[in-house]
Amino acid sequence: MLNAHGKDVHQCDSGWVPVYVDQEKSISLMSIGFLLERPDDAVVWRGPKKNALIKQFVGDVSWGDLDFLIVDTPPGTSDEHISTVDALRPFNPMGAVVVTTPQAVSVGDVRRELTFCKKMGLPVVGVVENMSGFVCPHCTECTNVFSKGGGEELARHAGVPFLGCVPLDPLLTQSLEQGKNFIQEFPKSSAYSSITSIAQQILDSATQGS
Amino acid sequence: MLNAHGKDVHQCDSGWVPVYVDQEKSISLMSIGFLLERPDDAVVWRGPKKNALIKQFVGDVSWGDLDFLIVDTPPGTSDEHISTVDALRPFNPMGAVVVTTPQAVSVGDVRRELTFCKKMGLPVVGVVENMSGFVCPHCTECTNVFSKGGGEELARHAGVPFLGCVPLDPLLTQSLEQGKNFIQEFPKSSAYSSITSIAQQILDSATQGS
Repeated sequence: MLNAHGKDVHQCDSGWVPVYVDQEKSISLMSIGFLLERPDDAVVWRGPKKNALIKQFVGDVSWGDLDFLIVDTPPGTSDEHISTVDALRPFNPMGAVVVTTPQAVSVGDVRRELTFCKKMGLPVVGVVENMSGFVCPHCTECTNVFSKGGGEELARHAGVPFLGCVPLDPLLTQSLEQGKNFIQEFPKSSAYSSITSIAQQILDSATQGS
Repeated sequence: MLNAHGKDVHQCDSGWVPVYVDQEKSISLMSIGFLLERPDDAVVWRGPKKNALIKQFVGDVSWGDLDFLIVDTPPGTSDEHISTVDALRPFNPMGAVVVTTPQAVSVGDVRRELTFCKKMGLPVVGVVENMSGFVCPHCTECTNVFSKGGGEELARHAGVPFLGCVPLDPLLTQSLEQGKNFIQEFPKSSAYSSITSIAQQILDSATQGS
């Protein structure tokens, strides 16, 4: 999605050097994908090995001076999540941005993730509803493919901010497929305004918190 | 999705009694969801506890005489997957039905899951492509919301059967939201024919294998 496949992680005196997506080094990346010999290799690891690597990704990477460190976790409330929260605790993390899709089965899962954040003492920055309606590019009618309003209701029920909806947008998928910069390429697309509004709210929340 | 929330698991002489979705006991269910006190409870478990429960779900549930045992796993190739394959190995499982969505990031993940199956000696029944195009109910034009053809290409590349595509279908979501029987309720919907065709191929594959 960030056009970084095939890049390598190098070692320096202060640890692993992350992969940079551009020459300005505006985004630094670290992923287990960069450490595999072949892109098809399966990482057949039980919890303890995953936990050790998460700790290394936080502590042994030469991140430099970052504005934000974003950890994209799998769904759930297990090893990856416990280890990430434990590893970041000394750095007083801003909190979790919790993403759901609108339908009840997804909202139910994410409700349990909010319970997890509470149990672990991790603040919740807010809830995002993804795959939220599809505007047909042929007739401009909107269809709620995966039901409607689940994310907003979840946020209200849990007493946390609702950050907004991101619609299903074929232009967004197309950008991600080709490793293009969606924000630059499609400023008029339906997902653009919702993504920038969500990002702005997270920035505002960071400024208030600091 | 099967209208079984709030039901309880009971104990009998031969183990846990699964939850039945209808009076004919045509489908028996077991899920950690039935063992939680409250539906919002998060299961904050590391691998070893999950592995022990998976073993119990296979060995300590009074399943009776089943035609098929279907295990719905999370994405990935970690504790849940290793433990499930290990627990089922003595029963000579038919294999994995591997589900992807069409776009490259998803296909890449699922390619690693096929490598996992190979490593573990688990046969692959076939690949299903989900969220495969959306037919607008207003104008009947089809949009490939998440790119196109990734599942079929993956199957060909891996040398395993391609079982078919399931389109994005709001009627399917609606049925699952309300716990209704989609096959009975919407025999004319776009997802109906693809789902029944995939099921038939799996049945055929089971008959050939036995």
